[in-house]
Amino acid sequence: MPPHPLTLDGSAVLHQMFRMRWAAWRSIDRSQRATIKEEAREVLGSMERDPRGDSALFSTIGHKGDLLILHFRRDFEQLNRAELAVSALRLSEFLEPTTSYVSVVELGLYDSTVKLYEAMLDEGVVPDSDEWKAGLRARTDEQAAAMAPRLYPAMPPHKYLCFYPMDKKRGEQRNWYSVAIEDRRRMMREHGLIGRRFAGRVKQIISGSIGFDDWEWGVDLFADDPLVFKQLIYEMRFDEASAVYALFGPFYISLRLPASEFGKWLDFDAPAFGLP
Amino acid sequence: MPPHPLTLDGSAVLHQMFRMRWAAWRSIDRSQRATIKEEAREVLGSMERDPRGDSALFSTIGHKGDLLILHFRRDFEQLNRAELAVSALRLSEFLEPTTSYVSVVELGLYDSTVKLYEAMLDEGVVPDSDEWKAGLRARTDEQAAAMAPRLYPAMPPHKYLCFYPMDKKRGEQRNWYSVAIEDRRRMMREHGLIGRRFAGRVKQIISGSIGFDDWEWGVDLFADDPLVFKQLIYEMRFDEASAVYALFGPFYISLRLPASEFGKWLDFDAPAFGLP
Amino acid sequence: MPPHPLTLDGSAVLHQMFRMRWAAWRSIDRSQRATIKEEAREVLGSMERDPRGDSALFSTIGHKGDLLILHFRRDFEQLNRAELAVSALRLSEFLEPTTSYVSVVELGLYDSTVKLYEAMLDEGVVPDSDEWKAGLRARTDEQAAAMAPRLYPAMPPHKYLCFYPMDKKRGEQRNWYSVAIEDRRRMMREHGLIGRRFAGRVKQIISGSIGFDDWEWGVDLFADDPLVFKQLIYEMRFDEASAVYALFGPFYISLRLPASEFGKWLDFDAPAFGLP
Amino acid sequence: MPPHPLTLDGSAVLHQMFRMRWAAWRSIDRSQRATIKEEAREVLGSMERDPRGDSALFSTIGHKGDLLILHFRRDFEQLNRAELAVSALRLSEFLEPTTSYVSVVELGLYDSTVKLYEAMLDEGVVPDSDEWKAGLRARTDEQAAAMAPRLYPAMPPHKYLCFYPMDKKRGEQRNWYSVAIEDRRRMMREHGLIGRRFAGRVKQIISGSIGFDDWEWGVDLFADDPLVFKQLIYEMRFDEASAVYALFGPFYISLRLPASEFGKWLDFDAPAFGLP
Amino acid sequence: MPPHPLTLDGSAVLHQMFRMRWAAWRSIDRSQRATIKEEAREVLGSMERDPRGDSALFSTIGHKGDLLILHFRRDFEQLNRAELAVSALRLSEFLEPTTSYVSVVELGLYDSTVKLYEAMLDEGVVPDSDEWKAGLRARTDEQAAAMAPRLYPAMPPHKYLCFYPMDKKRGEQRNWYSVAIEDRRRMMREHGLIGRRFAGRVKQIISGSIGFDDWEWGVDLFADDPLVFKQLIYEMRFDEASAVYALFGPFYISLRLPASEFGKWLDFDAPAFGLP
Repeated sequence: MPPHPLTLDGSAVLHQMFRMRWAAWRSIDRSQRATIKEEAREVLGSMERDPRGDSALFSTIGHKGDLLILHFRRDFEQLNRAELAVSALRLSEFLEPTTSYVSVVELGLYDSTVKLYEAMLDEGVVPDSDEWKAGLRARTDEQAAAMAPRLYPAMPPHKYLCFYPMDKKRGEQRNWYSVAIEDRRRMMREHGLIGRRFAGRVKQIISGSIGFDDWEWGVDLFADDPLVFKQLIYEMRFDEASAVYALFGPFYISLRLPASEFGKWLDFDAPAFGLP
Repeated sequence: MPPHPLTLDGSAVLHQMFRMRWAAWRSIDRSQRATIKEEAREVLGSMERDPRGDSALFSTIGHKGDLLILHFRRDFEQLNRAELAVSALRLSEFLEPTTSYVSVVELGLYDSTVKLYEAMLDEGVVPDSDEWKAGLRARTDEQAAAMAPRLYPAMPPHKYLCFYPMDKKRGEQRNWYSVAIEDRRRMMREHGLIGRRFAGRVKQIISGSIGFDDWEWGVDLFADDPLVFKQLIYEMRFDEASAVYALFGPFYISLRLPASEFGKWLDFDAPAFGLP
Repeated sequence: MPPHPLTLDGSAVLHQMFRMRWAAWRSIDRSQRATIKEEAREVLGSMERDPRGDSALFSTIGHKGDLLILHFRRDFEQLNRAELAVSALRLSEFLEPTTSYVSVVELGLYDSTVKLYEAMLDEGVVPDSDEWKAGLRARTDEQAAAMAPRLYPAMPPHKYLCFYPMDKKRGEQRNWYSVAIEDRRRMMREHGLIGRRFAGRVKQIISGSIGFDDWEWGVDLFADDPLVFKQLIYEMRFDEASAVYALFGPFYISLRLPASEFGKWLDFDAPAFGLP
Repeated sequence: MPPHPLTLDGSAVLHQMFRMRWAAWRSIDRSQRATIKEEAREVLGSMERDPRGDSALFSTIGHKGDLLILHFRRDFEQLNRAELAVSALRLSEFLEPTTSYVSVVELGLYDSTVKLYEAMLDEGVVPDSDEWKAGLRARTDEQAAAMAPRLYPAMPPHKYLCFYPMDKKRGEQRNWYSVAIEDRRRMMREHGLIGRRFAGRVKQIISGSIGFDDWEWGVDLFADDPLVFKQLIYEMRFDEASAVYALFGPFYISLRLPASEFGKWLDFDAPAFGLP
Repeated sequence: MPPHPLTLDGSAVLHQMFRMRWAAWRSIDRSQRATIKEEAREVLGSMERDPRGDSALFSTIGHKGDLLILHFRRDFEQLNRAELAVSALRLSEFLEPTTSYVSVVELGLYDSTVKLYEAMLDEGVVPDSDEWKAGLRARTDEQAAAMAPRLYPAMPPHKYLCFYPMDKKRGEQRNWYSVAIEDRRRMMREHGLIGRRFAGRVKQIISGSIGFDDWEWGVDLFADDPLVFKQLIYEMRFDEASAVYALFGPFYISLRLPASEFGKWLDFDAPAFGLP
């Protein structure tokens, strides 16, 4: 049985983390600040509302960044344009990029893949034959159509965002990529059961970044209570897929900052965090 | 028996480490400095005294930072506001963030959890059933009420602070998250016995940062004699939970600096370290 | 059988990654900007068209860089001149080098090598004798002549570039350099079969960097659909050569930016990405 | 037998590494430079001679720093004051901190500990009982009194300094903290024998940094011939304690620079390295 | 048989890597640039010709540095003076140190050592006795006299330089420092045979840095054809000493830049790379 599960690709995703150059920002006069804030509010506010692929602002806690901008777009060309549009803002003079993450919304179909492989092998279809490829393509297209809303998600309407990238380990003795697909499917199913217990409290968007960035996946969790992130990730840390095979990157915890409140935030004037 | 122990979450915690831009600080004139010091003393002094969640200043030894500000707050929204309030200080122009740590005060209940699991399993309660969850919730609420003072601590009244983050190892052969909960409970109990021998000399606050920052826990130790930090951590390094499973991050050693002495510190004029 | 496969060396390659100093760029006046853009367009445009070794511009997504310049040259002296020519641009005042990669286009001849070794050993040629060396040299020259177009490639005409460096692992238990050449040949052949399934959709250029940079190889993938990078690399991650022995460096995803569109890009004015 | 050896703690130690901002230094006029040099010479010269805890200047080779200031003090409060006194110098505007190290002079008493444990166990004293603790305390006090000169050392009078931090490994299979104390004692004794062969040529000061900085120990070697550092450390690398269990941090090699010669050094005028 | 081979120490070596501050360099006027270039050409040219210990300039490819200055000196004091002399140049205002490497030319005498140990053991000499030490010292002095030209080398007259630092691994299962000296001698001999096959095409200088810098050795390879570096290091990667035990640091590839051509290089005017 071939080892790789089918995966569906959706929106192109960019996380941009910035530190505010507060000293420089304060050093310019009030009217300049007003102009810059107005431009930022307008441009970012319009990105926030764009149904073809939206963006959102977040206020990040800690030194890793003050501001996080999350973009969902149809493709990488639109994504690079969004990035250039942020650079074009006069505000960007006061934004120091600390890090970023490039990925594509992804759905991994372990269950469907194993079932499809079994069915095709039972029918005597030869792996990698034209018939085999046609079968995979048909199944992929069918699923992509069914899952379009999850592949091209709108920004989830929650107050808190937890973002982190991760890998599956390829150690000398514990190597995810050498495990049989049936075993990986079982582990992913158990892993998914924990997530399901948190349904309604956490919205999760997984994006794949193999070929695009330095970890294999990005994980975005959205919730109204940030303690739920800790509970979910802690519980998951004990399931086999995570305990033995997951390697975690840096974590970023942020509050949703509507573009309409961004000016207040820039004035150190308590903004109303939450939805626009 | 399910693998994850019950944990209680309390105050949101932020450690901010700053290097002073001494050259820039000295380059401004005395009256400007006076204004800036006065504002800092007032804002930070009021944070120091706030019973709803307090903050404290520390003078850090070594190049990792000159100033450490530690904030305890009710939730992440208050924490981000505290962070923005520090950025709003005119002094922040002279503070270069070197690092930070975001976490939540945590009590891990290995003992209660194993006892509760055993009791419920004996009564035939099915794990993850509604009855099971209700049992967990009842126990958690009960403990959270009993332990509120430890979950929402006031700033401990000691002269020295030792802070470091840590993980439990997930190696190929030694993986904390694959160890049975009964064995982890035993190791944590032995680990706790060492801490107990230092009771009265060290006050310890553990905060969890899974989902919030790059290590799993932050450890704050408060004492009047800093050599006790070394003795305690060295002894603990030989117990099984630490020797085999602990992975330590950077260490920060600092002296408590009352806001009322901060102006002296900024003038290189020997401040009186200790309590406000 | 000697362990090292024959390899052929071709063009010298330099990847330069830059972050644009947007704030400084915007701070100069329009006419200065015009002069600088004109000079850059001319110099880089002429590099783009040079048949003796060409260069190409790419717009990179994410904080690792805004601009990537890829140079192919006949040798390292020409490469260093190209690098100095970029430094000589007045634009370089606004380009902050974030990273780079130095390598030489390489073709590894596992199949030919094993066959040649077997033939020479059958004929009783003594390894490392003069006759042996002559045999290797003859075979290498023959192959280098036949493969000249692949050794000195022109810039592939595709819209997207994926670049990453990689190593073969030298772990305590899994060490590529301790595996018999016949087994490495088998693994590389299986690895190549996956690549072949993507023929027509991805153009791949492998360059070797042992002795020149910090990883053993650089991989450049060119395609018109960037999702193909992800599919290809994900599938390959399950073959034995990658799953067990590959160690991957950072990934850079970029869009081809013709020199003629570079001025627009510098004006934040949507450029037409793609071929010159 | 309890696993932790008795250790004695002495002087608080701070290593400060600085890079000189030569360009800025040269940009100020001669008379300003003279004032700044005079102040530095006076303050640092007086620290150099202070019998209550002295400091020394070193000229470091390589990019890790130009200047290293080493402080021995009675406690951390004095250490932080020394650090603030350096920051208070007008020269500090031209000193960029690159790194630092915080520790406490330490003597580890493997031999005495094992003997004492054996004697007390023979006498039937129960580990961790009050009698046991009293025995430990008596022995520690006795040794601390006897070893006061080594615990509170004056700056050794040698021309060269080699500093590096180190850990004992806690690997999955080779873990210093899981080895029986008798075996660690044997390894430390063998390790010490090598050091003894270099007696008279190298003066060594070990300081402990558990709880204070990112490695477990700092090692300072003082000698008049720097090649002796290389010979000593190379020989030691083959003894079991080092070969199997030591993990080494960065190395810093420096020449002693008397405060009286510091002005010359700042003028690029060949200073006389060596003792004040 | 004692585990450590005799080693001979020769010239003190410093590699300095700098990035040119091109923007600042271009911002000053032509006559200032002329003065600065003249001073640099004179000072560095005179270092280039000094028979008591010479220096050479190299133009480095890639972002790790633009300029590499390599110094050979009689001892560390001369080395630090050379470093201060570079800092004293007005040009140094435009040189940003990116990294450096401090070491001492070293010849490791595995063969002589094992033979000598065997002979002395046969004669009944007791290891570490006075007689034993005298035997070692006599042999070392004898060899040092014979090998003086290799211990205090002049700058090799080649166009290309490849520099990298390296360690021998001390892994949990593969630990160079736990291998018997006879086995290390055999591996080093096999390793040396590969080098010998490249004699005449590559000149190699090994320097030891235990106690001085962060890796155990520095390797400098000089050649007129840089592809030979890649071939040599690739072949060596398969011998046991390298495949199993070598750990490689960053690689730097550079072209020799005569001081007489340095002015052209600073003018972006194609310099003639090669010998002075």
